[in-house]
Formats: sequence, C-alpha cells, structure tokens
Amino acid sequence: MAEVVTFGESMGLLMPQFEKTLESSQTLEFSFGGAESNVAIGLSRLGHEAGWFGRLGSDPVGKKIAKQLRAEGVDVSRIVWDDGHATGMMMREVQYQEVSVYYHRKHSAASHMVPADLDEAYIASAQILHVTGITPALSDNCLQTVREAIRMAKKHVVKVSFDPNLRLKLWDIAKAREVIWSLAEEADYFLPGFDELKLLLDESDWERMRPRLNELDAISVVKGVERNTCIVQRSGVTSVPFMNVDNVVDTIGAGDGFCAGFLSGLLRGWPLEKAVQLANVNGAMVIQMKGDWEAAPTWELVKRRMENQAHIER
Amino acid sequence: MAEVVTFGESMGLLMPQFEKTLESSQTLEFSFGGAESNVAIGLSRLGHEAGWFGRLGSDPVGKKIAKQLRAEGVDVSRIVWDDGHATGMMMREVQYQEVSVYYHRKHSAASHMVPADLDEAYIASAQILHVTGITPALSDNCLQTVREAIRMAKKHVVKVSFDPNLRLKLWDIAKAREVIWSLAEEADYFLPGFDELKLLLDESDWERMRPRLNELDAISVVKGVERNTCIVQRSGVTSVPFMNVDNVVDTIGAGDGFCAGFLSGLLRGWPLEKAVQLANVNGAMVIQMKGDWEAAPTWELVKRRMENQAHIER
Amino acid sequence: MAEVVTFGESMGLLMPQFEKTLESSQTLEFSFGGAESNVAIGLSRLGHEAGWFGRLGSDPVGKKIAKQLRAEGVDVSRIVWDDGHATGMMMREVQYQEVSVYYHRKHSAASHMVPADLDEAYIASAQILHVTGITPALSDNCLQTVREAIRMAKKHVVKVSFDPNLRLKLWDIAKAREVIWSLAEEADYFLPGFDELKLLLDESDWERMRPRLNELDAISVVKGVERNTCIVQRSGVTSVPFMNVDNVVDTIGAGDGFCAGFLSGLLRGWPLEKAVQLANVNGAMVIQMKGDWEAAPTWELVKRRMENQAHIER
Amino acid sequence: MAEVVTFGESMGLLMPQFEKTLESSQTLEFSFGGAESNVAIGLSRLGHEAGWFGRLGSDPVGKKIAKQLRAEGVDVSRIVWDDGHATGMMMREVQYQEVSVYYHRKHSAASHMVPADLDEAYIASAQILHVTGITPALSDNCLQTVREAIRMAKKHVVKVSFDPNLRLKLWDIAKAREVIWSLAEEADYFLPGFDELKLLLDESDWERMRPRLNELDAISVVKGVERNTCIVQRSGVTSVPFMNVDNVVDTIGAGDGFCAGFLSGLLRGWPLEKAVQLANVNGAMVIQMKGDWEAAPTWELVKRRMENQAHIER
Amino acid sequence: MAEVVTFGESMGLLMPQFEKTLESSQTLEFSFGGAESNVAIGLSRLGHEAGWFGRLGSDPVGKKIAKQLRAEGVDVSRIVWDDGHATGMMMREVQYQEVSVYYHRKHSAASHMVPADLDEAYIASAQILHVTGITPALSDNCLQTVREAIRMAKKHVVKVSFDPNLRLKLWDIAKAREVIWSLAEEADYFLPGFDELKLLLDESDWERMRPRLNELDAISVVKGVERNTCIVQRSGVTSVPFMNVDNVVDTIGAGDGFCAGFLSGLLRGWPLEKAVQLANVNGAMVIQMKGDWEAAPTWELVKRRMENQAHIER
Amino acid sequence: MAEVVTFGESMGLLMPQFEKTLESSQTLEFSFGGAESNVAIGLSRLGHEAGWFGRLGSDPVGKKIAKQLRAEGVDVSRIVWDDGHATGMMMREVQYQEVSVYYHRKHSAASHMVPADLDEAYIASAQILHVTGITPALSDNCLQTVREAIRMAKKHVVKVSFDPNLRLKLWDIAKAREVIWSLAEEADYFLPGFDELKLLLDESDWERMRPRLNELDAISVVKGVERNTCIVQRSGVTSVPFMNVDNVVDTIGAGDGFCAGFLSGLLRGWPLEKAVQLANVNGAMVIQMKGDWEAAPTWELVKRRMENQAHIER
Ligand SMILES: Nc1ncnc2c1ncn2[C@@H]1O[C@H](COP(=O)(O)OP(=O)(O)O)[C@@H](O)[C@H]1O
Ligand SMILES: Nc1ncnc2c1ncn2[C@@H]1O[C@H](COP(=O)(O)OP(=O)(O)O)[C@@H](O)[C@H]1O
Ligand SMILES: Nc1ncnc2c1ncn2[C@@H]1O[C@H](COP(=O)(O)OP(=O)(O)O)[C@@H](O)[C@H]1O
Ligand SMILES: Nc1ncnc2c1ncn2[C@@H]1O[C@H](COP(=O)(O)OP(=O)(O)O)[C@@H](O)[C@H]1O
Ligand SMILES: Nc1ncnc2c1ncn2[C@@H]1O[C@H](COP(=O)(O)OP(=O)(O)O)[C@@H](O)[C@H]1O
Ligand SMILES: Nc1ncnc2c1ncn2[C@@H]1O[C@H](COP(=O)(O)OP(=O)(O)O)[C@@H](O)[C@H]1O
Repeated sequence: MAEVVTFGESMGLLMPQFEKTLESSQTLEFSFGGAESNVAIGLSRLGHEAGWFGRLGSDPVGKKIAKQLRAEGVDVSRIVWDDGHATGMMMREVQYQEVSVYYHRKHSAASHMVPADLDEAYIASAQILHVTGITPALSDNCLQTVREAIRMAKKHVVKVSFDPNLRLKLWDIAKAREVIWSLAEEADYFLPGFDELKLLLDESDWERMRPRLNELDAISVVKGVERNTCIVQRSGVTSVPFMNVDNVVDTIGAGDGFCAGFLSGLLRGWPLEKAVQLANVNGAMVIQMKGDWEAAPTWELVKRRMENQAHIER
Repeated sequence: MAEVVTFGESMGLLMPQFEKTLESSQTLEFSFGGAESNVAIGLSRLGHEAGWFGRLGSDPVGKKIAKQLRAEGVDVSRIVWDDGHATGMMMREVQYQEVSVYYHRKHSAASHMVPADLDEAYIASAQILHVTGITPALSDNCLQTVREAIRMAKKHVVKVSFDPNLRLKLWDIAKAREVIWSLAEEADYFLPGFDELKLLLDESDWERMRPRLNELDAISVVKGVERNTCIVQRSGVTSVPFMNVDNVVDTIGAGDGFCAGFLSGLLRGWPLEKAVQLANVNGAMVIQMKGDWEAAPTWELVKRRMENQAHIER
Repeated sequence: MAEVVTFGESMGLLMPQFEKTLESSQTLEFSFGGAESNVAIGLSRLGHEAGWFGRLGSDPVGKKIAKQLRAEGVDVSRIVWDDGHATGMMMREVQYQEVSVYYHRKHSAASHMVPADLDEAYIASAQILHVTGITPALSDNCLQTVREAIRMAKKHVVKVSFDPNLRLKLWDIAKAREVIWSLAEEADYFLPGFDELKLLLDESDWERMRPRLNELDAISVVKGVERNTCIVQRSGVTSVPFMNVDNVVDTIGAGDGFCAGFLSGLLRGWPLEKAVQLANVNGAMVIQMKGDWEAAPTWELVKRRMENQAHIER
Repeated sequence: MAEVVTFGESMGLLMPQFEKTLESSQTLEFSFGGAESNVAIGLSRLGHEAGWFGRLGSDPVGKKIAKQLRAEGVDVSRIVWDDGHATGMMMREVQYQEVSVYYHRKHSAASHMVPADLDEAYIASAQILHVTGITPALSDNCLQTVREAIRMAKKHVVKVSFDPNLRLKLWDIAKAREVIWSLAEEADYFLPGFDELKLLLDESDWERMRPRLNELDAISVVKGVERNTCIVQRSGVTSVPFMNVDNVVDTIGAGDGFCAGFLSGLLRGWPLEKAVQLANVNGAMVIQMKGDWEAAPTWELVKRRMENQAHIER
Repeated sequence: MAEVVTFGESMGLLMPQFEKTLESSQTLEFSFGGAESNVAIGLSRLGHEAGWFGRLGSDPVGKKIAKQLRAEGVDVSRIVWDDGHATGMMMREVQYQEVSVYYHRKHSAASHMVPADLDEAYIASAQILHVTGITPALSDNCLQTVREAIRMAKKHVVKVSFDPNLRLKLWDIAKAREVIWSLAEEADYFLPGFDELKLLLDESDWERMRPRLNELDAISVVKGVERNTCIVQRSGVTSVPFMNVDNVVDTIGAGDGFCAGFLSGLLRGWPLEKAVQLANVNGAMVIQMKGDWEAAPTWELVKRRMENQAHIER
Repeated sequence: MAEVVTFGESMGLLMPQFEKTLESSQTLEFSFGGAESNVAIGLSRLGHEAGWFGRLGSDPVGKKIAKQLRAEGVDVSRIVWDDGHATGMMMREVQYQEVSVYYHRKHSAASHMVPADLDEAYIASAQILHVTGITPALSDNCLQTVREAIRMAKKHVVKVSFDPNLRLKLWDIAKAREVIWSLAEEADYFLPGFDELKLLLDESDWERMRPRLNELDAISVVKGVERNTCIVQRSGVTSVPFMNVDNVVDTIGAGDGFCAGFLSGLLRGWPLEKAVQLANVNGAMVIQMKGDWEAAPTWELVKRRMENQAHIER
C-alpha cells in the first residue's frame, strides 16, 4: 500500500502556447494540476509509493488526470468517479511577467467530496497522510472530509503533514485563519511559507511569530525566511540555507516539490535537517523546467544534484 | 442599429487537434460557439447588420468571444459583463465517427441572464428578434428573459424567429415540450428540424404533425423532411427540396447556417420559398468546411453557389 | 494478478505529421507500438487485467513505453530493464497510399530477451498466455524464451493463445514455417489471417487448408476468409461474418484489436462464436481511428456498437 | 572538386519541442548531425567547396541527410549507400540545464565503413582532408578507413586536419589515447580542446602539456585555454583571445564551427593567427542560434562581425 | 466618432516560428503590422475611440487586417478597398540577435493612396489626427494625401501629431529630411527619437539640436535622450526619466506604444509631463511581450503599473 | 550538364494549415512553386539531370527556392540573383472545395528576366529545352527571353518542349492566343490540356481542332480528351487511355508531373505512346499526395506502379 496518502482537487489546466495570451491563442496546451497530486507525483518520482484520490468527473478531463497519475506510478485506486459533476478546469497565462489564473472549479466534482469518500483502511495503511489548506476552502463538506481524514490518520497512528497553501480567491482571510490554524493544531508537520505565515498570523515580525508556532504540537518547517528554511520546534529553531538557482523557467510547483522532497526525507528516516535539504533541492529543480509536476525530478537526478552541492558547499 | 437582434449563451470551445481524443491530446484548439452567435455571424457574413448579446464572464474566454464577434462585424455593444461568474466552456471530440460534447456551463455567466439585461430600445430598433430553445433551458431567469424579450419585440412590432434547438442534456422532455411550445405560440417564424419536431410533439407521422403546426400563428419551416424543407402555413405546405452535398467535413452549425440564410432571405424581402432555398444553400456550405461559424459563407460565395445551382436545376 | 499475460517487443514509433514524408518532415509524431502490447492495451480498455513484459532499454523510449502502458492500466511490473541495449525504434510513412516501415530493432534490448526473464509464478497466475510469431523471429534466445513461456503455461494449465503475425522482413519463409507451426502445435488458440495461412501452409485452397488445421490441437480462428472469420475445430467449421466498415482511417492494429476482442470473449466465458463477433467489432473499431493502440475502444463503446449491430442484423 | 574533403558518421537527430522531455513529448523535431558534416556545411556557408561522404542506409533518414547536405551546397557525390544497415539515429534532450544524448548507432551503416569506400582521386584533388576522432571509435574497419584516408592524403600532398572529438561513450580512454595520438602524429593540423587534451595526455598542467604537443609534426590549435586559443608550434606559442558572447542559445556545434572557420582561414591563405580569429568568431556565432549546423553563419555575416569586432578591439 | 484618426499602410507580417530562419522554416506565423494601426490599437486598448484607414487589397491579407483591427475596437469604416492592387507584405527574422525585414510593398494597395481617399468630415470630427513619416515615403500621391489630411485637420482645428518614423529603405536621407521637416512644421506634436533626430538634422549635439526644434510651432517630444524623454517647447525643456525594464522580449512596437500612451495622456487632458510618463510606461510594456501590437497593454494594466511605479519612485 | 534545361518564375508559396482559411490562420505553411521548377524536380526524381534557372530576389524566399531545388538534385548554377527586386510570392487556400490563388508577383525579380540572363552554352548542352506559356505572360522582356532561348535551342539542335499553361489572370485571351500559338509553332513538343486548347483555338469540337494542330511542326500531346491522352501527328492520332485514380489528395501539379513523365520517356528513347503512359502514371501519382512538387514520385515508385498497371491491364 501507499507510503504517503494524499487527496484533494486536481483540475484540467489550459495554457497558451508560444508566449501568446489566452485571448489571442487559437491553440492551448492541455495538462492538469493540483497541489496534492503534484506532491504525489513528486514522491513517486523520488521512488516512493504514493496514493492520491479525490472526486473526478466521468469526463475526458477526469480520465486524463487518472491516466497520467497512473503513468507516473501514483496509486489511483481510490479515486471517486462523479457522474453528476464535471472535473474542474483552470486556465493560466503570463502577461508582462505576471501570472493570472482563471478557475472553472465552482461546483466541480471535487467540491462535492464527502467524508464517505474516505477509505479508512487505505489511510491506516500509510505512514503519512498529506493534506493542504486548499481542500477545506472548497466547501463545507470538503472541510469535513479533511477533518475526518485527519481523525482517521491519528486513530491509526499515521503522521499528518499539512501545507496551508493559502488561497485568498477561495475564502476570506478570517475564515482561512481560523480553519487553517485549527488544522495545523492537528498536524505532525506544518509546512507554511514565510509570507503565508505572515498573513495567517497577521504578524510580520519573525521573532513574534516563533512563539505562536511553538503553541502547535507540530514541527513547523517555514520556507523562505530570507534564503533559509527554518525548522521550528519547541526545542529551538534550525535554519537550513538554500542555494538560489537562476535560470528559473517556471516557478509554479516549487512549494509542492519542496513538500515532496521533505516527505521523502522523512520516509527515508533522515534527520529533519537533511530532509529539508532534500526539500530545498527538489523545490529548486522543479522551477528549472516547464510544468507544475512535469518538472519533478527523479531520485537519480536529485541525488546527483545533492552530491554536487555537497562538494560545492565543502 | 441591427437588422436582427439575437441573444443567448456563447461558450469557449475546446477540441483536440490531429484526430486525437480529448483524453490523449497535449494541445487543444480553442474557439467558441453558441447557436445564437453562430446565426449572428452567419447574417453578418451575408451582409446584414446583426447584433448579439448575452452575459459573458470578465475573463479571457469572454473577451475572446466578444473580440471575435466584433471582428466578424457583429454588434456587441449590449454584451453584459459579469464579474461574478465565469464564461461557460464546452469540450468536443469525435470518436469512431460519433461526436461527444462535455459542458462546463452550469452556473456560467450566461445562466445568470435576467430580464434587466435587455435593452428595450435596442430590440425595438430591429426588424427581427431571433431566439432559441437553448436559452430557456439554462435557468428560470433565462426563461423569463426570453419571455420578456419576446414581449418587447411584439410591443414594437418586431418579428420573432424561434429555433427550438432541443437539448435534452439541459432539461427533460416534458418541461422542454411545455416551454418550447409556449414560445412557438409567440413566434412569427418557427424553425424546427423534423426529428426535433417528432420529439416535441411525441408524434412521428408527418400527416398528424401538420395540423398541430397549424395551431400556431407562426409560419413553420421544418428542416429535413426527407430531403425537403417544408414551409407549413395554414394556407398549405410548400416543399423545397435541398441538394445533398457530399464532402461533408463537419456537420455542426448546419442548422444555424440554415437559420441565418432564412432570415437573410426575409430581410431581403424574398418570397418564403426563395428564402428557404438560400437557407438550404447556406446550411449546406457550412458543413463543407471546418468550424461551427468559421465555415459560414459570405454573400458573394453563396450567391455564386445559388446561381450555379439554378443552372444545374434547369 | 493479470488475467492475460503477454510479452514481446515494443518499440518507439516515429511518423510524419500533416501527410508529409519522413524525408521531408521537420517534426515527427512520437508514439510506440508492438503487437503484444497492443493486445494488452486492447484488453485493458475492455475491462480486463492484462500484464505485458519484455526487455526495454533504460532510455527515454523505454520509459515512455512503460509509462504509457501503465497509464492504460496494463501491469508492467515484470518489465526487464536492459542497461546495455537501446529500446528498438521504427519509423513509418504513407506514400501514394502504401505504408512503409523502417526498423531500428536489430540488437535492440528486446532481441536480448532470455528465458531467465520469465517469472513463472506470474505466468502461472494468468488464465491466458498470449504470444505472437514476431518474438521467435527476433533471435534464437527469443525463440527459447517463447518456448519456455509456453512450457510454463502448460505446466500450470494456463491456456496459450498464438497469433502467428508473420513478418518476412525478420526471417525467411522456410524458417518461419517450421517455427510457427511448431508453436501452433503447442497453442490452445491459433489466430492466423487467411493470407498469412496461405504463406505458412504454402497452399491457397481453403478446402485443402482445413485438414491441415485439424492436425493441430488448437482451435483455429482464421481471419478474413472472404468477409468471414472461420472457427476451425475438429468438430467442424463455423463461419462468422463481419460487417465491413468504411471510413477506414488507419488499418494498422486491426489484427491486434481482433485478438484483444477474442480473448476478452473467452475471459467472459462466452461461446466461441460470440467471442469472434466481439473480436470482429473490436478489430473494426480500431481502424476507424488513428493510432495502433490509441484507437482501441473501451468496453462501453464496443458494447454499444455490438448492441446496435444486433439491431441492424435482426 | 572539393577544397576540403571530410567523411564520417552523420545520424538522424530527434529532439523534443517546446522544452518538453523525450519521454513526455508527443512530437519530436527531426534533423541530423555529425561532426564532419557540420564542418562541411560550415565551410560551404563560408563560401568554400566542401565534400562530405560516409555510409548512409538507403532509408528516409539517410536520404534526408544527403538532401540537406546537397541543399547546403556540400558535394555528396561520394556517399556510399548501404542497403543492409540502417542510418544511425540519436536523440537529445535538455533537463535541468544538462544535455543528454541517446544513440542508436551501434551496427549503423556508418560503422560498416571500409577502406574500399574511399575514392583516392577524390581525396587527392582536395587541399585539405579533415577527419575526427569519432570515426576511429566506431569500429576497427572505420579506424582502418581513417588510416587509409590519411595515407592517401599524404601520398598526394593533401594537408590533414584532425579534431580529436573525444567521445568516451564510444571507447575507453586507454584505447582512445593510443589511437588518437597515433592519428595526431600523422596530422598537419591538430585541433583539440583544452579539457580534451587534459584527458588525452592525462595531464592538467599547461606547461607540461606543451612539450608533448611539440613532439608532433602538426601545428596544434588548442581551444579554450582560459578564454584563449593557443597556436602551438615548435617555434613557440601564440595566444589568440576570444571575445566571450552571452545570449548563448545552444552550445552544440561550437567546436565544429571553430574548425570550419579555421580551415576557411587556411584556404584563404591567411596567417595562422587570423585564421584562428575567424575560427573564434565562427564558433561564437554558431552558439547564438539554434541547431548544430543550422546556426552556421554565412561569409557575409561572419565578415561583418569580424569587422565590427575589429572596431571594438581597437 | 473617433477621438484619434490615423491612416497609413498596414501589411501582412510573416515570421518564422521556433527560432528558425525564414529560409529554413516550413511554417510561418502570420500577423500584420503598420505603425499607424499599431498606434490605433494601442489607443483602443487604453480605452479611446480610435479610427484607422488606408488602402487595403481585396485579398485575404487585407481582410485579415480589417477584421483584427475591428476585433480590437478600432473603427475601420473608412478603409478603402482596392481591387487592383495587393495588400503589402513583410517578412521578418532574427539571426544572431539582429532583426532583418524584407518588404513586398512596392506597388501595394497602400502606395496608391490618394487625397480622394480622405473623408473630410471624418477627420473633422476627431480631436487628434496622427500621421507618420512612413506614408509620405511610399509615393508622391501618398505624400499629397498626408499634406491634404493635415490641411483638413488644421481647417477643422483638429490637432496634428506627427511621428517621423524615418525609414531609409524607403527614401534617401536628403528627400526624407526635406519632406519630414516640412511636415513637422505643420504639426502640433512632433515625436522623434533622438537617433532619428540626429539623422534628420544632420547634427549630433543635443545643445545645437534644441534651437532647431524651437523653430517649429510644434511641441517636440524627443525619445531616448539618455534614458530621458525630453519635452521641448519654446518656453524650455522638461526631461522625463524612464525606468529601464529588463526582460525585453521583443523591442518592435516600442515607439508606437509610446505614441499611443502620449496621445492617451493628451486626450485625458493630462499635463504634458504626465502624458509622457504614460507614454514611457506604455512603450516599456509593449517590449515585455511578443508582438508589434499584440503586446499593447490595456488601461487597467497600465494604470496598475503606473501606480506601482509611483510608489517605487517615492 | 543537364539533359533538360528549363527556366521561368518560381515563387514562395503560403498556405493555411489544418483546413483553415488564409484570413483566419495564425500560421501558414511555407513552400514554393513554379511550373518549370516542378518539372525539373519531377525529372530529377525520375533519375535525370535537370537544370532550372530564373531570376530570384536575394532574399530568404529566393534562397529557400535555390536550396530546395539543389536538395532535389536540380542544377541551379545558372540562377540569376536580383538585388533590386523581391522574389514573387503566392498565397493559396481552399474554401468549399474551390482553390483560390493570390499573387504578389507583379514587379517580381522573375518578371525582370532578360535575354542576357541566358547562357547559350548551357542551353546548347541539353537534349531538351522546356518552356511554358507562363513566362511570356509576365512581361515583354520575359517574352523576348523565351523567344531568344528557343532560338538558341534550335541553333544547337536542342529539342523544344512547350506547355502552354494558359493563365488568364496574367494576360487577356487575345494576346495569349497570339503569343502561345507563335511559340507552339517553334516547338518540337506541344503539350496542351484539352480545355486549354479549346480556349486557345476558340473551338470546342475535337474533330475541328485536329487539323489546326496539324498546322504545327510539333508533335502535340493533348491531355484529358475524355480520359485519353491524344498524340497528334500529321501521320494520325494515337489515343492513350489513363487509369483514373481516386483518393485524389491535391490536384495541383498534375500537369507538371505529366510533363516530367513525358520528357523522361523521351530521354529514355521510348516510343511516344510509352512516354505518354509514363506521363499519365507520373501525373496520377502527383495528385495522390500533398504538395505541388513534394508529391513527385521517384523512378523506383513509378516503375513499380507501371508494372502493376501492366499486370492489371493484361
Ligand atoms: N530561486 C530559487 N532557488 C532555489 N530554491 C528555490 C527557489 N525558489 C524556490 N525554491 C525552493 O522551493 C521552495 C518553495 O518555494 P516557494 O516560493 O515557497 O514555493 P510556492 O510559492 O510554490 O509555495 C523554497 O523553500 C526553496 O526551497
Ligand atoms: N448533407 C447535406 N447536404 C445539403 N444540405 C444539408 C446537408 N446537411 C444539412 N443540410 C442543410 O442544413 C440544414 C440543417 O441541417 P440539420 O441537420 O437539421 O442541422 P442541425 O442538426 O445543425 O440542426 C438542412 O435543412 C439543409 O438545408
Ligand atoms: N474494413 C473492415 N471492416 C470491418 N472489420 C474489419 C475491416 N478490416 C479489418 N477488420 C477486422 O479486423 C480483423 C483483422 O483484420 P486484418 O486485416 O487481418 O488485420 P491485420 O492485417 O492487422 O492482421 C478482421 O478479421 C476483421 O474482424
Ligand atoms: N561563450 C563563448 N563565447 C565566444 N566564443 C565561444 C564561446 N563558446 C565557444 N566559443 C568558441 O567556440 C570554440 C569551441 O568551443 P568548445 O566549447 O571547445 O566547443 P565544443 O565543446 O563543441 O568542442 C571556442 O574555442 C571558441 O572559439
Ligand atoms: N528598455 C526599455 N525600458 C523602458 N522603456 C523603454 C525601453 N525601450 C523603449 N522604451 C520606451 O519606448 C519608447 C520608444 O522606444 P524607441 O526605442 O525609441 O522605439 P522605436 O525604436 O520603436 O521608435 C522609449 O522612449 C521608452 O519610453
Ligand atoms: N484523377 C486522375 N486520375 C489519373 N490521372 C490523372 C488524374 N488527374 C490528372 N491525371 C493525369 O495528370 C495529367 C494532367 O492533368 P491535368 O488535369 O491536365 O493537370 P493540370 O490541370 O495541372 O494541367 C492528366 O493528363 C493525367 O495523365
């Protein structure tokens, strides 16, 4: 069974080709995306058994997502097929160096996810359950589903990893703060970005943020604290520097790549600091190629990069 | 102002390239469609002033639709921009010679159309108001909007043309029968296909269908009664044969092309029979090229074809 | 475990786009093919558990093949990765309505397949082992591997299906006759085409061919005996007519589609005649879309077509 | 007849489009490459008569190579067509800024080249014979062919230019050192890169490398000795600085461009230093456009660049 | 009616895709361009009513231009269709970072423009007439047309804006100097680039150029005087600095974007300095996306950029 | 030297991809065409030495034409490069099964061809000079050039082949009749199509046309006299039937393919009837693939087809 189980919304993704805009394009690239499935693919490429599920419409978009995840070796046996609702879609374009996203996800199959979609035995068999703050923002029943999944995980002593992935297009900050914090309180690993954390805590001073994180049971791993990733535990803070890469091709997916790398480190039984180093390298590689998950590196390539980096750092 | 005013839902349209399926395509063609806007473009290419409006989301899909309609010379000044809802989308593919369509139109901007979106002066200034049986199927407020538009037209002695365009994916047959018939009762021109009519009347015998059509005030123009188009009036039935074309490239849009041709004939003040001949030729040309509306011929080309046909028939 | 296990050579496939020739194309389509993997995909789409294996080079071509088979739901857990030899390639083009194929398969990973690549338990767990006459033509060790696989199947009472797939580019007719006949003698189902059979038996008269087939223990299913598929058993011959389809887009893969349909019928426990009907419909659908295996229909679509056909035949 | 004659292996070249990987691409770019034919094209674009030959399979890949070389004005009259072996192929991709190449060249037509393929009169008529260290690595008969060609050149007082082009995928370093050095001993111009030279001489200190080069009769031109190209003669060393260009689009082909530029300088009767300047500019321009040989500049453009550079350097 | 009226030559534009050259491309991108229509589109995107006209051939190139301008909301009602001459074409490619343009515009429809093509009432109804120095270079009748248009404008107290757009491929410098200066003498706004001005005045010293500009009645806006745009009036010179952007994707269209921004500022009744700031931002954005006019930003995006810049500058 | 020498205008050719129209295409296919160069390529593919020349502009279009002709093995050594005029261009599209062509050839380089462009020794060395009725329609100097070339041929006892290729877009019928007939009077082989001949002779009755042809010294080969090709000599008429092919992909180039086949038959020393059979097969194959000259078959393929046809006819 899967070492890591994750679930959420994956959507069809449409993007203009050849630096055109959506409006002026006669053809579009057609792929898919979703924070949780990106993490599952990232883990699979790093050599782990990862399982992803979610509600998909019984339409070509849903079938494409399932096929491509299966191609990547992700276990898709728990996907719930929804005949009544379409798989969500998103469109994305870059204009004057700014990314815009347009969603067709309201009333999507995924937003109709319910606790009954969860397979307790499946979750129980995993070592880690990974959830994000996007799912609870989709609908109330989605929030219930996340809570129920965490409850199942804890019951079966499965670790819970939580990436807040704050999306202010989906809910307002007040609601988001309350729900995300309540979920962080249930997690074993809490993986926010620094800017996200500022919004969540309504606080921009790192020194004042740390005690707040110490209220949590979770180990917090905060990305992007000035070119450092900070591991915050009650016992103290460890800063892991990351090497900035240039030749950035496409920044989307960096956070999911980070997450996959970190969970891979945990599964390998590595110390936290080393797991974060893997996370940093994995995140950095994802942005050096095109694609949200297409760019996720294999274990072979990440290993080589880490070894090279070790040489350079020495 | 526009000679013909029409309104309804236009949606982004995604199709696989190179005979692939949606599921297996890495790129898609990106155009748009909608029965009413197809008719408006058809009329514009035939040399008429046509106006189309409807609710479009303030997203690239909506903007693309508006731009392309404007490019075709359709008056788009009455479009209602909806910041709160996305423009609808449809995907289409051909497998083993069968067409499948997948809609992302539930909760679309268009389904939120309300009577207040109508500009009475605009409708009043037209010679013909053209509506279809798709709009009333979208939502109750859409139905109200259609009823209100017809009321406005009648008040200002604007002729009403009505193409039932029965879509059983949008509503059940019982509801469709009731609403469509009630709208046909308001129309001046009723333009059903023969197969559609069978479903609407729950009757497959042409002889028994005709008296039912005579209950209407409208002149009915029934397409496809065995290679004939039948003009049904209380005074009797006229059958206009159509010349079957081979080299059919893409059958979608034939009905809209027919409709544009018929309304063009009316606007030209032609006798009904000649208007139907124009309709037949226009419908036939649309299916000899790719595209729902891209294939709509210009007046120059239709005229030449009609003249050639006249020669051949002689 | 897999209901049907099959193995052989799958290769990268390169074809010109847009009706160009290989020589004049600046871009090529890149897919893959292989008779046995086509059958495995065909079975998977019809709802069965199918497993395919073979030697693939550890290169992007091999990885692409494995990923796409996995996407299609084919079990690829027994693939043997060969670091020392490249995955084979083939190029294909159509000129003046004739297909030409160019192979880069000599010394390919697949031609290095050895009996030790076989997993006896895996074969033992299947209901049917499917092999073709291509594999024994690749190399002596490949022939040994086929013989060994059949031995394993028979030991574990797994049925053996054998499609001769005569390829005179790979060996001369004398050698082919000898080996193919010796393999047919081991099979439970022998699935030649009529023209192939003529070459194999050096005999063109159907009446004189039948007694030769009766020498075999296998049930022979002969394709294309004048628009019939003939089931030849010692007890007699049953002719199953097939409905000729027009709109033939791409004839490649018809035989593999036939085979998948036939095996699907067997797995469903259908009588031979009905299995052959399914085979006919499946083969016919494959040629109505582009692609060797891309065109393989799902159970849902085949079922619908069979039911329609039943109506028409009645 | 040709001023420069060269021969070796040219192969079909497949690359993903649109920054995809080979594995994930549904289409590939299809061109060709080969160090010696790159040099021949480079020379032809600079205005010289260049002849290339080699064994090509009688397949579309071989025909494409011959046609494109002919298009570029390269004399291809001595190509040997091999019906029994396929033209070699290579695939190339870039991942995370690293280039990977995959060859299908074992047993290719080119590897079957034999001394009998050489046309002595053709070589005799040239001013320069250009060979590389790739050909002798392909097979023993290829090595014999290179030796025989050099023997012919020397017999007819044709200068021999030799670019080692060390490819450790094709042979081990011990064998490569021995053969390459023995060929360098026959050459009039030896054109190694600095890093290559380190491997060939198993020596990384420039001061200790120079006496080794002085053992050769050849004039050595060593590329990339810290932004200099060094002309090593017994009479001493001349360092020619090269102006580093940014906007590097594709580094492949730089060495071949250098070589074409250098030979062009020799043919023009320029002093060595000026020939190396031309070589530097030509090499630098090749990397500012896409393509191995597609990027080779015409004489008109190189001249303009050299003149501009002259201005700037002054 | 249009706030700004402009006229001139618009041509079909062909460019290689995928970094190829024209010579080696099997496909080309097909768009259109023209300095005046670029300005019209730029103004329309900034929210103004702009009208463009000119002679277009009654061919698909001409129709494409008219349709796309109409799509962009430009009023094209005064286009003159010329059955006897083809719409001009240009081809463009980039090699080694240098742009080359090839024209097929001699004898084009546009070069046959005559004063009778002008609609005096149309020009009279505008606030600004915008002309460039390209049109008078096309033919004598074109020059007469420009003079006549300016005469009409002045008669109806319409402001005249004049961008010299010096094209030495179209005429020699002596003729250009004379004609351009004579037109500048008629203008209200004269918008040269600094380098252009040097050529026009045969003078490279800024201090000596200024008195020459003061001879004109026009307000001169000189682009690119060392990262400043200089507003030259008899009352003095105001320098408006522009923020240099990196990520320059395609420099073509910058000047037209500047012009559109400046005219937009005038129409908004802004002080000259603020109009120039808008011009600078608009010009800078155009070069950050692909396309001559495709890259013209909307008012919404320009406004946001200006506000951000204001913050940064503070 | 070339066995057949021909000259005339070759132009860049632009066509929409994917069944779009020129107006709606964002990309175009870019090739080239010209009746005489089509014949030269056809001959080269059939194994002959063919030389083509003409005036080409020194622009990428001209260079592309020269390169592709050279690639096809056509001798292009006599091309005249014209710095002052652009290479002509044509655009082509198919709408509702009708082909439209748009020319940009007025004032093209080719229309400036003069007798001085002819190399007498080159023409003298050929066995056949092939000219068409397009060249004399381009300009008076072009007509003089054709006359002068024929004079040179006759002086050196080179046979003259003449295809009238009547193009009423280039001149009026009266002028065409006079000039074409005067050229036919000089020819050894006159190759009109039947419909063309009707226009040229202003006569539609075959029986009355034959005596007119007998006035000529030339052997006339009339294409398309009711599925026959008629060889008209004073000694009588021979009718060679051609086998009609279906699967017609693209009819353009049929006449040029016919011509290449006929000249090939002459060069092989075949009897006229057999030469016409080759012409028929060659013409028929050209229309079974895409492209004006891309579809020209090689000798190998034509030979195979002729042999098959021989079998079938027997
Ligand atoms: N330019 C960069 N260089 C190196 N690593 C980076 C870079 N950008 C992102 N990363 C890595 O990816 C991680 C996640 O980046 P972040 O910007 O937080 O992603 P997201 O916005 O997708 O959540 C960072 O913590 C870091 O490890
Ligand atoms: N094959 C054809 N040949 C000629 N005309 C046709 C053909 N198919 C459709 N048409 C024309 O188009 C009209 C509408 O066709 P129909 O099939 O009813 O369209 P739709 O299904 O889009 O409503 C017909 O009445 C006829 O005039
Ligand atoms: N034109 C056709 N119409 C219907 N079925 C067909 C057609 N062509 C092939 N088939 C089906 O496919 C089967 C295999 O066809 P065949 O030509 O023998 O394939 P292959 O050459 O790939 O072995 C046939 O027996 C038949 O069932
Ligand atoms: N970045 C660069 N700027 C300028 N010239 C370059 C650059 N890179 C390569 N060259 C030129 O190309 C030559 C060959 O480069 P090299 O890297 O040795 O090529 P290769 O690896 O293909 O053999 C160099 O000696 C130099 O003249
Ligand atoms: N790199 C740049 N950064 C910011 N603005 C620029 C840049 N390049 C051009 N612009 C803006 O565009 C204007 C016109 O640029 P210019 O080079 O004169 O265009 P053109 O050559 O098209 O006439 C400049 O005055 C400036 O406002
Ligand atoms: N459908 C066809 N089937 C067989 N041969 C054909 C066909 N069409 C054309 N050809 C061959 O090509 C020749 C030239 O055809 P034609 O239509 O006259 O060409 P064009 O219009 O290009 O001059 C014919 O004489 C015949 O030999």
